[in-house]
Amino acid sequence: MDKFDLIVLGGGPAGYLAAERAAAAGFKTALFEKRSLGGVCLNEGCIPSKALLNSAKILDYAKRAEGYGVRVSEASIDHAAVTARKNKVVKALVSGIGMKMKKLNVTVISAAAAITGKSGDGFFVTGGGETYLADKLLIATGSAPLTPPIPGLREGLESGFCLTNREILDMTELPESLVIIGGGVIGLEMASYFNSAGASVTVIEMLDKIAGATEKEISDILLKNYKKAGVTFKLSCKVTSVGADSVTYAENGAEKTIPASKVLVSIGRRPITDGIGLEAIGVYTENGAVVTDDRMRTNVPGVYAAGDVNGKSMLAHTAYREAEVAVNHMLGKKDFMRYAAIPSVIYTNPEVASVGETPESAADKGIDVKTVSVSMRLSGRYIAEVNGGNGIAKLVVDSKNSRIIGVHLIGSYVSEMIYGAALMIETKIKTDSLKELVFPHPTVCEVIREALFEI
Amino acid sequence: MDKFDLIVLGGGPAGYLAAERAAAAGFKTALFEKRSLGGVCLNEGCIPSKALLNSAKILDYAKRAEGYGVRVSEASIDHAAVTARKNKVVKALVSGIGMKMKKLNVTVISAAAAITGKSGDGFFVTGGGETYLADKLLIATGSAPLTPPIPGLREGLESGFCLTNREILDMTELPESLVIIGGGVIGLEMASYFNSAGASVTVIEMLDKIAGATEKEISDILLKNYKKAGVTFKLSCKVTSVGADSVTYAENGAEKTIPASKVLVSIGRRPITDGIGLEAIGVYTENGAVVTDDRMRTNVPGVYAAGDVNGKSMLAHTAYREAEVAVNHMLGKKDFMRYAAIPSVIYTNPEVASVGETPESAADKGIDVKTVSVSMRLSGRYIAEVNGGNGIAKLVVDSKNSRIIGVHLIGSYVSEMIYGAALMIETKIKTDSLKELVFPHPTVCEVIREALFEI
Repeated sequence: MDKFDLIVLGGGPAGYLAAERAAAAGFKTALFEKRSLGGVCLNEGCIPSKALLNSAKILDYAKRAEGYGVRVSEASIDHAAVTARKNKVVKALVSGIGMKMKKLNVTVISAAAAITGKSGDGFFVTGGGETYLADKLLIATGSAPLTPPIPGLREGLESGFCLTNREILDMTELPESLVIIGGGVIGLEMASYFNSAGASVTVIEMLDKIAGATEKEISDILLKNYKKAGVTFKLSCKVTSVGADSVTYAENGAEKTIPASKVLVSIGRRPITDGIGLEAIGVYTENGAVVTDDRMRTNVPGVYAAGDVNGKSMLAHTAYREAEVAVNHMLGKKDFMRYAAIPSVIYTNPEVASVGETPESAADKGIDVKTVSVSMRLSGRYIAEVNGGNGIAKLVVDSKNSRIIGVHLIGSYVSEMIYGAALMIETKIKTDSLKELVFPHPTVCEVIREALFEI
Repeated sequence: MDKFDLIVLGGGPAGYLAAERAAAAGFKTALFEKRSLGGVCLNEGCIPSKALLNSAKILDYAKRAEGYGVRVSEASIDHAAVTARKNKVVKALVSGIGMKMKKLNVTVISAAAAITGKSGDGFFVTGGGETYLADKLLIATGSAPLTPPIPGLREGLESGFCLTNREILDMTELPESLVIIGGGVIGLEMASYFNSAGASVTVIEMLDKIAGATEKEISDILLKNYKKAGVTFKLSCKVTSVGADSVTYAENGAEKTIPASKVLVSIGRRPITDGIGLEAIGVYTENGAVVTDDRMRTNVPGVYAAGDVNGKSMLAHTAYREAEVAVNHMLGKKDFMRYAAIPSVIYTNPEVASVGETPESAADKGIDVKTVSVSMRLSGRYIAEVNGGNGIAKLVVDSKNSRIIGVHLIGSYVSEMIYGAALMIETKIKTDSLKELVFPHPTVCEVIREALFEI
């Protein structure tokens, strides 16, 4: 029986990065993945959606070109070509991970894995008809889309009328109309692409706002931009049933039905903890997620969990960092997981990027804050590049110690700006010191500097 | 005679920001500007060039659209429309500065100013036929293009055949061919725009590399991209004369002549210190620049200089910061100017952004460094968005203390990423701590994180 220092269950961002770091540190490592290396993020999430959204951005540029002195006679999306290119991108990246695993001598096993028990020698894991032994385990089995018990939904998913993030990214034909259940990040990104591509898009959201925990002023601006782009929203509405070619929802107590060519279900995700043998060694779960501490340890010594499966943040970059913390702990290096400076991004046009506390979340925690919000139009570059832009930058500062604890942005390039704001939070820098930082001119990020002087 | 706490000579980035900060702090402030508020940067530099380059980017996207599954039938630049839009952008921003000055009760005097002397009451400044008195002075008269003594150049500038950054941005007709003397930032940005717009562009550069002090590997990649886009380069070549419709240069001792519809002279800039009365109060200059210390003080107590006029960095964002340091010193606040973390950007497609030491500059200073260079293709977003991209990220780390002292990037979005690298340098963060920073996934900036793990 092959004995490993570490067996990783799941080859998504947490899993493959943990395998990479552990193997690089000299651990004999095995990685189980039943589908494709890279997990949801690479195969049916972050990366493919960015390929699509990039094509939508190029189309949007072409459509608005005249306002910038550029003549473009006609522009449209070839959805099949976009999808084919997306597949190429994904394939290249998946193969890149495979090569890295090979280079580092990680044993990749293309099978589902289940923990079957524990002895003095280690943990037993079976998969692909074999049993393996390991000193340590990392559970990184990820998450799956939530499918609520809406009448007709299960049948819709089976017939292909209803789709999750997985299937929608593989459609080669553009649907005439798309109804999206759930106005969170995934729903919004897909709404953005399919609307740009020419589908008629309706988003049904239970809450009275879109984009989940996104700061309210920013989600309002985003909503306004989506509406202007032609997306229809049904806020504070609850889907009550799914028909053969329609969706029915309740709005203020009244039931309404809208036709749909396709339906996307994007109301959230749940950790995958079933069928992986957690019970065989007594790993605790809570609300369906593996319970971990700030070293990513479970209750069972030697068993760690990272990524969506612990239900903490459900973001690929959180998964990376959690994986590193877990491996560092296995290696005896001091490290611990912090969630105060984890950025999040919505890759629409304009983009949304946030990190840290919102005024609302700070209030909930009893933190006394100063908040300042400035228009992106204070940036010369923004004015030079964006006709009629309505972006903003919002800073949340802890009144007690003048530290930045939240940065919230909507506008151009903000996805690539927000890591700097995360660094502000991580370094606990005070606003007075930050005022001395030189931002290049002319950039959009200069609005952060402008905001600092408005506090 | 009107008496001010502060008189600022020059309404560019250093001047108007100093006036803004000083007035906000309660100083009675006057600002002299003989042309248009905003200086070279806003009227004939950073901002108008970005408006042009943004249109070029939109055109480039349209031309490459097919590779991303977007059908665009025809695309071209309407140069007159681009210029008209640029003028609108500049006008809006200039008027914004004017409104800010008004709001803060800064007295704006639309005239050239000259210092005429000093008494126990303060400094005398005349302009627009009046004389004013001030406790303190800030010299912020900026810079002008260098025009070397090349035979025929002066005549060319007079006839309109030769242009500086000022005139080229106001051309409403696209020249058939453009010869650019000097392959620094201004020359390259204009080469990028006019090449995209359809002109035949040749850059003549005395050095064997382009982009001035830009890190060598990055300037090589940039050169390769420019050549691929169709720009012709004559490196290690020296212009010997300018004719009526041609430029003659020496290449390996042989003289060659190329025809040109227009010629752009962009070999550098010189501080403007003439005719502003520096001699009346004995302000020291050296190599034509006002000498300042790290508080932006000149040798004359009460007289400060900020921006291009002190010849230190010749960047708008340096000017902003120097202006703040000067005003803070006037206000008795502790502050000093540091040049170790000033970013610089070339806004071409791809963009170049740098901050801090290059391996070469570190070696010159005797700093022992580790350097790591990684491909942007390690970023999933980069792969998803850029077909055939060849961008890189290069980190320079001080071996002694593991601090980041230089970051050099070529690729997409890097202009908006580099402030975060400046923050790394300013906060003196060590690479081990920086490895714990969570970068959002998928972003291009993640390559900085990848590079950290390669050190």
